[in-house]
Amino acid sequence: MSLKLYNSMSREIEEFKPVKEGHVGMYVCGPTVYGPPHLGHAKSYITFDILAKFLRISGYNVRYVQNITDVGHLTDDADEGEDKIERQARIDMVHPWEIVDKWTRQYMLDMERLGIAHPSFYVRASQHIPEQIHAIKELIDAGHAYEINGSVYYSVESFPEYGKLSGNKLEEQKDGVRISVNTDKKHPGDFALWKKAEPEHILKWDSPWSKGYPGWHIECSVMANKYLGINFDIHGGGLENKFPHHECEIAQSEAIHKVPFCNYWVHNNMITVDGIKMGKSLGNFITCEDLLSRHSKQAIRAFLLSTHYSSPSNYTEEAIEGMATGVARLDHLNRRAHEIAAQGKEEGSGDKNLLEICEKADKDINDCMNNNLDTPGSIAILYSCTSEVNKLFDGGQIGKKGAVAVISLLEKWADGLLGILPAYEEESYGVDLEPIMSLVLDIRSEMKKNKNYAVADKIRDELHKAGILVEDTKDGARWRKA
Amino acid sequence: MSLKLYNSMSREIEEFKPVKEGHVGMYVCGPTVYGPPHLGHAKSYITFDILAKFLRISGYNVRYVQNITDVGHLTDDADEGEDKIERQARIDMVHPWEIVDKWTRQYMLDMERLGIAHPSFYVRASQHIPEQIHAIKELIDAGHAYEINGSVYYSVESFPEYGKLSGNKLEEQKDGVRISVNTDKKHPGDFALWKKAEPEHILKWDSPWSKGYPGWHIECSVMANKYLGINFDIHGGGLENKFPHHECEIAQSEAIHKVPFCNYWVHNNMITVDGIKMGKSLGNFITCEDLLSRHSKQAIRAFLLSTHYSSPSNYTEEAIEGMATGVARLDHLNRRAHEIAAQGKEEGSGDKNLLEICEKADKDINDCMNNNLDTPGSIAILYSCTSEVNKLFDGGQIGKKGAVAVISLLEKWADGLLGILPAYEEESYGVDLEPIMSLVLDIRSEMKKNKNYAVADKIRDELHKAGILVEDTKDGARWRKA
Repeated sequence: MSLKLYNSMSREIEEFKPVKEGHVGMYVCGPTVYGPPHLGHAKSYITFDILAKFLRISGYNVRYVQNITDVGHLTDDADEGEDKIERQARIDMVHPWEIVDKWTRQYMLDMERLGIAHPSFYVRASQHIPEQIHAIKELIDAGHAYEINGSVYYSVESFPEYGKLSGNKLEEQKDGVRISVNTDKKHPGDFALWKKAEPEHILKWDSPWSKGYPGWHIECSVMANKYLGINFDIHGGGLENKFPHHECEIAQSEAIHKVPFCNYWVHNNMITVDGIKMGKSLGNFITCEDLLSRHSKQAIRAFLLSTHYSSPSNYTEEAIEGMATGVARLDHLNRRAHEIAAQGKEEGSGDKNLLEICEKADKDINDCMNNNLDTPGSIAILYSCTSEVNKLFDGGQIGKKGAVAVISLLEKWADGLLGILPAYEEESYGVDLEPIMSLVLDIRSEMKKNKNYAVADKIRDELHKAGILVEDTKDGARWRKA
Repeated sequence: MSLKLYNSMSREIEEFKPVKEGHVGMYVCGPTVYGPPHLGHAKSYITFDILAKFLRISGYNVRYVQNITDVGHLTDDADEGEDKIERQARIDMVHPWEIVDKWTRQYMLDMERLGIAHPSFYVRASQHIPEQIHAIKELIDAGHAYEINGSVYYSVESFPEYGKLSGNKLEEQKDGVRISVNTDKKHPGDFALWKKAEPEHILKWDSPWSKGYPGWHIECSVMANKYLGINFDIHGGGLENKFPHHECEIAQSEAIHKVPFCNYWVHNNMITVDGIKMGKSLGNFITCEDLLSRHSKQAIRAFLLSTHYSSPSNYTEEAIEGMATGVARLDHLNRRAHEIAAQGKEEGSGDKNLLEICEKADKDINDCMNNNLDTPGSIAILYSCTSEVNKLFDGGQIGKKGAVAVISLLEKWADGLLGILPAYEEESYGVDLEPIMSLVLDIRSEMKKNKNYAVADKIRDELHKAGILVEDTKDGARWRKA
């Protein structure tokens, strides 16, 4: 079975076929860096992180390019309002690049903390001003764009396929509420390629039309084509960018290059809070930093990946908290497997059975992922597999070979792909707890020997309060972090 | 007393006077991001971090701009050889931006770990291609530059002051060994402003002269002037960049703007290993990451700041290790002061004396720093002050008021400016050790009461092995991390 992806363009699940055998070029719309990354960002970038990782697991060589919008994104996401970064810079009374640097750093830090790998490389709008000006010139020359008073607009009527991704018809857009009436434009759906800057605007560049700055949409057309070719494999982004942003990218690139911009459009759905979309402009967002102060990255990822990327995830604190149980079960299984692998017998009579379980789970998860990235299904398989393996472990008939198979399964999928497995490492407490605990348990054992059960129990209870669980086994007492 | 700085241009210590009252514009040459940051980088960026921080302590509003060289820096630092980033990209078989992203991230991470604050903002050469092309055009128009076969060179003979920073005479350069003979150039000292790219070169842009890329020197002229003005306050960098890099910046900017490029040139000296300069090209470098795996950031900073920025620091592991003692003394003093501030009496008969000591130290350190950033002198004052204060603490006549003065002094200089004070915070061990240790000490106290000294001593010894020191005081046993 090979990868099938829902293609927003065809509105069908399609078999994935790369432009160049063995290679995948993927472009994903990155953040506009003027404020804190929130859970909505996390859902989008985890989705495409998983896609890139799964493609690599499947043997593809992936070039994953993500942009950083550091100029030109206006406050209403279309052609009106202020540049979001310039606005924030004015509020904070700093240079716009200070805003860009601060929030780019925060974005990267938060994504790292969430276990999201960096793309192959980031590209910034401000790094590609000449390329954007060049593309705008080409569009004007080809009759797809026109200048009015130093600004340049794309003529949507010049591109008959405009609307093919979103299904928005031009006729409807004429009266649409989303598009403000700008008398300069030939058609109200026309969008800015270049904006003449007001005198107080800081980030501006020379161009044949005015001292100004590029529109938000042209950067993605130019950078995707520059680094991935004029017809590339996958374009990803949030559903909210399907229109107008992605529709505009198609109109720009296909008008210039006359070939399909990309072959697969993949859109992640949004985060909702009480059924309403989470967004910076709506003010109902919860930042990644805030979430990470209360939840493990594994729990946050499990929450996001337990819903399919194409469906909305409804955020509640309880929903994320609830994920901790499943994550702890995976962790517990992993620790048991490591213990057997380190100290158990070489082989056990249950190994064959266990290996079959692991092989089946591996195949089933792979199938799930091939089926349009079914992460909820993959997680369900891991959880049900955990129950089965725990039973076998309880039976005591598992050897190192079996344990290693379990570890490999967990490392490949629960850790490597989904990122919901807590790290297995020797516990670190700043000081080595082992000798202290060994001392305490020796004392307690001494107490019990002298039938001083009250003190022995008190020690156990005090340790519990301190976050240490003591288990009395036939080989003596053992302790672990609660 | 106000700030005096050694100005490499005048070769004298001068009183610092900003272009605009209360404001300082500072430009510092940042890294070429193609390999791991090493101790040489650390010395340079700690120097200018200290300068920016001290200017802010002194009440200035500082805009500190640092560049990231992501294009155009050739392997021989002059006009010959390959682009350092393209070369590394070919070796690693990735796009040059992957090299740039990887090493920019590492650079920022290492600087953060070393307690170096980010500049106000970073600027990248690749973000300023149009501005660089514009400046080159201006230089050609003014007769300072000429094109040969798609490349553009600056004519050093057109700028009579060329050499004024480094003292290198043009006549000497004609026969100098540092400059390779390029028959295209009118004078062997002429340097590239624009290089025509070979067909296999990846990072290249359209220009009036060729598809190519800017020379290394022009980015700094353009970006410093763009963000700080045509005549700004301070230009910093490593001594090794004085010639040709800084000399070329002056030639470029002053030929265009006809005013002094900057008013103060500040150069940090290098790191030596057995008397030889540490450098990536020399292969004798030690990375920041490596150092940080063995030493605290405080020890590394103390090592670097114990030598004046204008003198070379000779690296040995022992020299850095040796810093740990001084750092631990500051830490110990800080902890004692915190303890008194938290639990001591309100006032003590020694407070007045202590306040005078702190006030004098504050003034003396401020004077040291005003004296061309005398960090070794500042550290010496802190250390000698530590001895005096410890004696007063030993005397037991210090109250909260005195303790707070010590904390303030340490926070301002040892932490805030020099960054050599370990963080004071409640100990964190992953689990809360307090209840466990309280339990253990209760048991031990019980043992002692029952004259079971052997076990009580055993407990103390075992705890010591575990990194916990137990002190028996008249108020009972206390513990702390060893």
